[in-house]
Amino acid sequence: MPATATATDPGNSRTRSWWGWGYTDAHPGDAECVEMGALLPGTLTRPLPIPRVADLAIDSPAVTPPPSLAHLVTADPEARAAHTMGKAYRDVIRALRGRPGRIPDLVARPTEDQEVADLLDWAGEHQVAVVPFGGGSSVVGGVEYRGDAHRAVLSLDLTAMDRVLEIDTVSRSALIQAGALGPVLEEQLRPHGLTLRHFPQSFEFSTLGGWLATRAGGHYATVHTHIDDFVQSLRVVTPAGTGLSWRLPGSGAGPSPDRLFLGSEGALGVITRAWMRLQERPRYKASASVAFTDFQRALDAVRAIAQSDLAPANCRLLDPGEALLSGASHDGSSVLVLGFESATAPVDDRLAIALDMARAHGGTGEAPKAERDAPADAAVSAWRSAFLRMPYLRDGLARMGAVVETFETAATWDRIPALIDAVRTEVGAAALKTTGHAATINCRLTHVYPDGSAPYFTVAVAGRPGDEVAVWDDIKAAATDVLHRHRATITHHHAVGRDHRPGYDLQRPAPFALALRATKNALDPHGILNPGVLID
Amino acid sequence: MPATATATDPGNSRTRSWWGWGYTDAHPGDAECVEMGALLPGTLTRPLPIPRVADLAIDSPAVTPPPSLAHLVTADPEARAAHTMGKAYRDVIRALRGRPGRIPDLVARPTEDQEVADLLDWAGEHQVAVVPFGGGSSVVGGVEYRGDAHRAVLSLDLTAMDRVLEIDTVSRSALIQAGALGPVLEEQLRPHGLTLRHFPQSFEFSTLGGWLATRAGGHYATVHTHIDDFVQSLRVVTPAGTGLSWRLPGSGAGPSPDRLFLGSEGALGVITRAWMRLQERPRYKASASVAFTDFQRALDAVRAIAQSDLAPANCRLLDPGEALLSGASHDGSSVLVLGFESATAPVDDRLAIALDMARAHGGTGEAPKAERDAPADAAVSAWRSAFLRMPYLRDGLARMGAVVETFETAATWDRIPALIDAVRTEVGAAALKTTGHAATINCRLTHVYPDGSAPYFTVAVAGRPGDEVAVWDDIKAAATDVLHRHRATITHHHAVGRDHRPGYDLQRPAPFALALRATKNALDPHGILNPGVLID
Repeated sequence: MPATATATDPGNSRTRSWWGWGYTDAHPGDAECVEMGALLPGTLTRPLPIPRVADLAIDSPAVTPPPSLAHLVTADPEARAAHTMGKAYRDVIRALRGRPGRIPDLVARPTEDQEVADLLDWAGEHQVAVVPFGGGSSVVGGVEYRGDAHRAVLSLDLTAMDRVLEIDTVSRSALIQAGALGPVLEEQLRPHGLTLRHFPQSFEFSTLGGWLATRAGGHYATVHTHIDDFVQSLRVVTPAGTGLSWRLPGSGAGPSPDRLFLGSEGALGVITRAWMRLQERPRYKASASVAFTDFQRALDAVRAIAQSDLAPANCRLLDPGEALLSGASHDGSSVLVLGFESATAPVDDRLAIALDMARAHGGTGEAPKAERDAPADAAVSAWRSAFLRMPYLRDGLARMGAVVETFETAATWDRIPALIDAVRTEVGAAALKTTGHAATINCRLTHVYPDGSAPYFTVAVAGRPGDEVAVWDDIKAAATDVLHRHRATITHHHAVGRDHRPGYDLQRPAPFALALRATKNALDPHGILNPGVLID
Repeated sequence: MPATATATDPGNSRTRSWWGWGYTDAHPGDAECVEMGALLPGTLTRPLPIPRVADLAIDSPAVTPPPSLAHLVTADPEARAAHTMGKAYRDVIRALRGRPGRIPDLVARPTEDQEVADLLDWAGEHQVAVVPFGGGSSVVGGVEYRGDAHRAVLSLDLTAMDRVLEIDTVSRSALIQAGALGPVLEEQLRPHGLTLRHFPQSFEFSTLGGWLATRAGGHYATVHTHIDDFVQSLRVVTPAGTGLSWRLPGSGAGPSPDRLFLGSEGALGVITRAWMRLQERPRYKASASVAFTDFQRALDAVRAIAQSDLAPANCRLLDPGEALLSGASHDGSSVLVLGFESATAPVDDRLAIALDMARAHGGTGEAPKAERDAPADAAVSAWRSAFLRMPYLRDGLARMGAVVETFETAATWDRIPALIDAVRTEVGAAALKTTGHAATINCRLTHVYPDGSAPYFTVAVAGRPGDEVAVWDDIKAAATDVLHRHRATITHHHAVGRDHRPGYDLQRPAPFALALRATKNALDPHGILNPGVLID
């Protein structure tokens, strides 16, 4: 499967799944799927079979690229199947049920900016929708085509543009092509002692361009929570021309040009490269976990730490269900995972102050002895391993006909307790109503701010076999409704895509919608770029 | 002068100057002007007289507001004169020479959002240009009207909307009307133990709305250098409707709606209120100054500190001229002013590490004994006093026919040394050529980043008497050219206004210019909002 293997990482011989998360060799086997399914009453007794590309009905492409572009484009069925959707639960279950989204007619793999511009020109002339595609890890319907307003669909895979082009060690920044996957770019930075230090859950399977286009949430729990803050300059290819912002550490010259394209999700242009601000690798680390018997008091502790200027790199609060699932606790406690790091000075003092704050709110936990370069605490380690494994387990549960998905949001602290309660109650009620089963709903805080935080929810429940998409859509509609009534954002760092459009349209200020529509018309006059995303 | 006194601050009986900086009672007297002028060979021997409104040719307004809006609008000559221009050197000398900019026909002082909307509706129907006006401290031609494409000009003074409407102590944030001047909003926050902690040089004479519309540079030398980061939500009244973004601590839902209006300089809408993130007042402070005999080594020291994670609140590097001027040193040294602060924990350790870094690059300085709530170092104090007095002294020198102005920029560290050299050389040459006198050019770094810094330049030279505006325009053209060739931003925190348009147009990426134009047309279809700013 040349199109789905990581062509950009020749040393990597593992095979990427076309339908599910990550590498095929990491997928849980049938026996593990059955074991997991047994935890959710009402799921299937045998896993759904792994879907095969050969079973898909794949038409001939409706368009043919011109000879000048033919070498960049493939109609290979494996490639087309792998570029059909992202990796949301909704995508996985559609593939498992043999009803994937619209399969693109062609997949293009440009190797330089001019080729991207040429592909956009051709697509504009022939009413071909262009869906920019990085690692394909979207969980919000960000990389598929819906509707039938275009003659054909081209998936624009950027992963052949994966090089670090230039490193400025004086200004501690690098010019990186947008198609570089996380490990690919970090490997190129490592010899220089530098790192982008952006480690989303999808790190292995997502690209710099994808992070930028979706305002991805990164390594830091506080201060610089999104990739946005690490952008020094962007190059964006649009159907109306290519733009390159100046490399600037800061500027007050008009509205930020880069901020208009950060979060534009491929609807306004294709980000092809960026100068990114880098970090030194941390030399000092300290981490610990704190247990709380009372989740509300844990929230208060996290708020106190977030409103201090301690700036922990990690500050994740796991509710009892989340803590149990990840092995961070087994006694019904909530667990706060704290981590500090620095390239400049020891951070043990900061951890000690944070632990004091946590204890003042009823937490129990001790600072481990200072250690270098390794998390010191077993609960921390357990949580990290579980974190990376979770999407694989989700797909295993999907094979058992379960409905398992996450959604995340953010709100100011004054609304957080009622918001979390309402999500549990109302999303739980919607799940029960549509499935007849009680759902498991877990919550963790992934990022914290002085003025609020970002709760991340996991929902798991047996579906109605064969109707899993409808079940999830019912549950998601309830979630969208709760978030809207509590004025909590439809997404903190997963982006809008197509799945979040209803919620996004409700929260976007009307003048900004006018501005976005006007911008879309100006930059993408033929309406070919990722149609349906952000704006119609 | 009811229109120019601070109507929003009834306890304040001091009189604001209509033509120069700040309060009239703080202006240097004639004798002090002569004394300062003697330092710049070639200036006048007697100060220009203080200009009088009575001497201005003020026409009758070309339009009459409808009865429903009449109570909000005045045609009082004092008010109109005081709303004619900002407070750049260019503005001050034009007033001194009796050639101010176009005097607005009317000044409006709305008290609520609906009145702003009504005024915009009326202006749109009657081709009246609307220039939003906060404290009037623009130094880039941001609050005047140039050209003759409109029937009349209305200055929209927001300072009657100056209340803190709501405080959320849980989320540590406040809803503040845009017309509140710095002291006015801080006074309302103080009883709650909170502060916005945004202290630009213009603090007393600028408003929250002005800071937001211009992306003002604030208190912090690192991390949160612009007011942008403290914005939780904005209300913006545009001719196409009013928008209110949700209060969110963070979000990844599409491009940031607020970031489009931050820096929009009144050209896309009128910011009428904002939820702002607040700080606790710091309980721990530590500051020190470090002297360097070698400016290049001082730059290296500052870069090392900026690339650490020490995050000083103050990190200003003064070159020898700047240090002399402010009394921070008298021996030709460069001086680094360092300050740390925290509401959480002592900061002496951080100061000590920063001082070690500075000494490793040849700096000499010691940490003073820890003190609370006061800068410990005489050089720090001297610098702060001089900082607030500088604009007054500039006006005194202007009265002596001198050309005295500042400009600021930012660039990545790799370009900083050559940039600063080139500014000295080329701007100095341009000043000599246009005046026949050698100019004094001082430099300080006001804000620092891991990837670069923001140099701030002061130029002083005897002008050609009567031709001071032309002299400054010659010098400024040379500065714009240097900044452009070195890819340094035309402004780090003074905004674009009309004076920076040539530089701004050169640096703005073409697709962003298309987006901005499309947005302008969508939100301001009659083209009445601050015409000529940002986009034509």
